[in-house]
Amino acid sequence: MDYSRVFTQAIDRLHAEGRYRVFIDILRNKGAFPNARCFAGHNGPKPITVWCSNDYLAMGQHPKVIAAMEEALHDVGAGSGGTRNIGGNTHYHVDLEHELADLHGKEGALLFTSGYVSNEATLSTLAKILPGCVIFSDELNHASMIAGIRNAGCEKRIFRHNDLAHLEELLAAEDPSVPKLIAFESVYSMEADVAPIAAICDLADKYNALTYLDEVHAVGMYGARGGGISEQEGVADRLTIIEGTLGKAFGVMGGYIAADQTIIDVIRSYAPGFIFTTSLSPVLVAGVLASVRHLKQSSAEREGQQVAATLLKTMFDEAGLPVMLGSTHIVPVLVGDPVKAKRISDILLAEYGVYVQPINYPTVPRGTERLRFTPGPSHTPAMMRELTDALIEIWGRLELRKAA
Amino acid sequence: MDYSRVFTQAIDRLHAEGRYRVFIDILRNKGAFPNARCFAGHNGPKPITVWCSNDYLAMGQHPKVIAAMEEALHDVGAGSGGTRNIGGNTHYHVDLEHELADLHGKEGALLFTSGYVSNEATLSTLAKILPGCVIFSDELNHASMIAGIRNAGCEKRIFRHNDLAHLEELLAAEDPSVPKLIAFESVYSMEADVAPIAAICDLADKYNALTYLDEVHAVGMYGARGGGISEQEGVADRLTIIEGTLGKAFGVMGGYIAADQTIIDVIRSYAPGFIFTTSLSPVLVAGVLASVRHLKQSSAEREGQQVAATLLKTMFDEAGLPVMLGSTHIVPVLVGDPVKAKRISDILLAEYGVYVQPINYPTVPRGTERLRFTPGPSHTPAMMRELTDALIEIWGRLELRKAA
Repeated sequence: MDYSRVFTQAIDRLHAEGRYRVFIDILRNKGAFPNARCFAGHNGPKPITVWCSNDYLAMGQHPKVIAAMEEALHDVGAGSGGTRNIGGNTHYHVDLEHELADLHGKEGALLFTSGYVSNEATLSTLAKILPGCVIFSDELNHASMIAGIRNAGCEKRIFRHNDLAHLEELLAAEDPSVPKLIAFESVYSMEADVAPIAAICDLADKYNALTYLDEVHAVGMYGARGGGISEQEGVADRLTIIEGTLGKAFGVMGGYIAADQTIIDVIRSYAPGFIFTTSLSPVLVAGVLASVRHLKQSSAEREGQQVAATLLKTMFDEAGLPVMLGSTHIVPVLVGDPVKAKRISDILLAEYGVYVQPINYPTVPRGTERLRFTPGPSHTPAMMRELTDALIEIWGRLELRKAA
Repeated sequence: MDYSRVFTQAIDRLHAEGRYRVFIDILRNKGAFPNARCFAGHNGPKPITVWCSNDYLAMGQHPKVIAAMEEALHDVGAGSGGTRNIGGNTHYHVDLEHELADLHGKEGALLFTSGYVSNEATLSTLAKILPGCVIFSDELNHASMIAGIRNAGCEKRIFRHNDLAHLEELLAAEDPSVPKLIAFESVYSMEADVAPIAAICDLADKYNALTYLDEVHAVGMYGARGGGISEQEGVADRLTIIEGTLGKAFGVMGGYIAADQTIIDVIRSYAPGFIFTTSLSPVLVAGVLASVRHLKQSSAEREGQQVAATLLKTMFDEAGLPVMLGSTHIVPVLVGDPVKAKRISDILLAEYGVYVQPINYPTVPRGTERLRFTPGPSHTPAMMRELTDALIEIWGRLELRKAA
């Protein structure tokens, strides 16, 4: 067995497909987002504009968040020092879980070290607790949900993206006595579209299924208090479990679920991915507390993001760029080839100081490679004009396909 | 299907076994560790002494760590804003990976959001890349390694704890052409004992197996620069992959692996648990950088910890308490019953202001429930005397079994 050869071949396959990933080495400038410094391949840091951050509302630099983290750092120190059960359960964690439960109108909430772990740990544990459980999963669900479903070892049925008829067909085909769970997202971050949540809840009622909604690309950004699409549409109480992240619109790091107290207690007590890991640093938790509380009361960030997204989509559309138009804040532009997507991204960074990462397989299906822009309240119309002009020039230079 | 009944029964089983977990709500006092404040069940915070933290060297309150985190917070803000590939790769991450690779004398290193995720993601991905791989796993390996091995879906062989003869028997029984990986820990955190690393490497050489060593309870604490038991014993270069945590002796949060560059590149490129998650907050990474650099040069913390551990073990042993004597810094005291372990812990907290968590199943096997003390350089001889006297009183009151 020549291990080295197997590993080298695995890397060679990525190069051959043009999807070997090079991480861009940057530092953001606090207080001046989306401005940042880029290190790789330059003599010293070079100023850039970040167009692909998931710090959607720039809360990662909000003065309240920074102040709360600084205070916690000086009050209790850097790390939690243990798992939630053994020394790592701080008063900040307890407070934040109450705040997140309230955000979604649920009895309880549970923190995880990331959104990925929330999904993996919760889905895999739920399906193990429910004997014979079948999970119904949208075909475009995030990798972390897929990991949870796979690791559960239960039966799964994949329904076509946001396709209610297909979902119902699959639900109807199962034995009524079998436990069922429908797992889906509200905002699909690579497609920029939204699930028909109420209609899925109707199906869940009809077929006695539990529902699990991933709102990571919606919490903080939709609903009057930032409770996500489920708050905006007034359906939060119909969902069994709502999952969210603390690392995107809330600007920090971590993940969580909100649900009734018994389910929270089950996941808390049985999920290895929750039990056997050092809890979130109290410094992070303090920052998230400030962020969630601010976004419950302030809609200025949400409104600024929607204005920016609408403007950028309009500019791209008018320029004939193949923008994937949706109702959300995410602005994907279809390229359809991993090498070209990387090439556009490289030119933007080297010649225009614009940072947007190419999105290739396995993040999106092969043949649908794209650039994905995430305008926020801090991106100005002038920045958008410059970006659009740059793309028009590159599209011409590389003779890329324009919108139909 | 009555979901609510199934969930309630799952919780009832924990109560019936006496292993339902109640998280103790605390805040540590930065600059005064192991002193902390406890909230639960009291009128306002009550001062306590923490005896079960994994912030083993109190680096979570070290002035260099706090200063580095504060500086990063003000320079770049709270969160990274994305995955490592999409906007979340900061200069801090790049620097820390170089620092960790150097710590273990390896070509490269890779950061994860936790030690749990490092183990799960690396083991499950490695076994998928190596066709037909068989993993040889110590029976007391941590839950996160077990999760990785299970999620790999590969064949596994469990060898008796630290039993070289049994490991060799299992290795010899396999086809020589089959890819093999031996997964084990250096310090077993609940047993307080240490693996025969060099002898395991000998077997790996003999049977052409890769080796994966979890050093989470050793990095920062053993070896002249804190490189772990593998540094102390001069065998780091013989191990294929060394895994560590940033949330215990380094005092912050996160996990990592160190290995040759090709393996790092394979895990970086193929592991879903690495790819699809928001990267560590740069604030945390900056703190870890300061911590790792400090512990590479300073042995005072390591020496202080060893002195404290030796003293506490001696006091417990002389008092006739059933302490599990080992060569490491961890001091477990065997109780052998989940209800009694919890009762001792409750009395210590309520009557003595001592916080030590009972360790019950599934963290340790049933029948081996214990208290686990982690003395460090900040625990004074006077604190140890008070603790020992408290345990003597409780052992008498509850008529518990003393050492043989």
